[in-house]
Amino acid sequence: MNNEDFEALARVLMGRVFIQLEASGRHVHVTSDQAQTLFGHGLTPERPLSQPGQYLAKERVTVMGPNGQFQNVAVLGPERKEAQVELSLTDARMLGVTAPVRPSGNVTGSPGCILAGPKGQVALRQGVIAAQRHVHMTPEDARAMGVQDRQVVKMQVYTDRPVIFEDVLVRVSPDFATFAHLDYDEANACGFRKGDLGRILP
Amino acid sequence: MNNEDFEALARVLMGRVFIQLEASGRHVHVTSDQAQTLFGHGLTPERPLSQPGQYLAKERVTVMGPNGQFQNVAVLGPERKEAQVELSLTDARMLGVTAPVRPSGNVTGSPGCILAGPKGQVALRQGVIAAQRHVHMTPEDARAMGVQDRQVVKMQVYTDRPVIFEDVLVRVSPDFATFAHLDYDEANACGFRKGDLGRILP
Repeated sequence: MNNEDFEALARVLMGRVFIQLEASGRHVHVTSDQAQTLFGHGLTPERPLSQPGQYLAKERVTVMGPNGQFQNVAVLGPERKEAQVELSLTDARMLGVTAPVRPSGNVTGSPGCILAGPKGQVALRQGVIAAQRHVHMTPEDARAMGVQDRQVVKMQVYTDRPVIFEDVLVRVSPDFATFAHLDYDEANACGFRKGDLGRILP
Repeated sequence: MNNEDFEALARVLMGRVFIQLEASGRHVHVTSDQAQTLFGHGLTPERPLSQPGQYLAKERVTVMGPNGQFQNVAVLGPERKEAQVELSLTDARMLGVTAPVRPSGNVTGSPGCILAGPKGQVALRQGVIAAQRHVHMTPEDARAMGVQDRQVVKMQVYTDRPVIFEDVLVRVSPDFATFAHLDYDEANACGFRKGDLGRILP
């Protein structure tokens, strides 16, 4: 097979068989009101993320827990209806909170923390979670892989320390790009490097 | 089945089918000479570990890398022929070193670091690794599970965030007790809690 054919084949397989992996570092989502309190203005995009419309903001916050804090934590935009702090379980232990493993957006009853920005602080009553590992998928890719929105699947990752992750949540939307998201505990446990691929097991 | 029968069955299955999991935090092995330099004397046992003859020492060290340090790091005894610093990849990134994933004892060409104790410091030219996940096994349990020393297997773990770990190294010796060892990246990636079990997949 020549290079051109190989690249054409790779483009077809990507999203049909293989899924690009990404590691999500600790980050925060805030509401518009909270952004005003923390920064004195709304979030400012610094660069786009893999999911369409999502961006890394120029603004940064300090996340404070009972036993420790993280400075310079990424804030992802756009603003949301409810704040959410996504940590690894390693991070949560350092802060001194017990973060439940939850799908993004499901923060009811999770522990709180304090967010500090250059203009003010916000005390969250809840919102600290470890994000359940998940795959964002376009409807086309979901059809090709034979999976549906909210299905829980096994995903094999082709990495330095190969792992089959169980309990991987599939989220399907025309607003998504097809990427699997691991936190840094998971990324390090499987030896993830940028460009590594995964595959949903039948 | 009454409780007594159930417990008798559990004792048989343990080591024949199921393997107890343990999470290994960051720790250091040192030589006798290095213990003298760091502490002014040899290691003092504080409590035994699951592997026969191995112990957590009363002594603690600071591990220093180019970008950071960890204080109060556990030292495991007895003393060895060569120093070894076992970190998670998360830890290694915080220190600023690139730790290779290696079976314990295989440190050739790995990065070094500085160890500091109350009486002195030791500069290691090599020794910093992320331990390859592994199962210590008695010859009896290895026979029952149909595996051999140095075999690489898949291990399913029955945890909160279930995972099938590939590339798990089996080590068999009459000096061992049967336990699987994960580092904290792996333990957190699978939601490990004390008492959780694993099973080698065929």
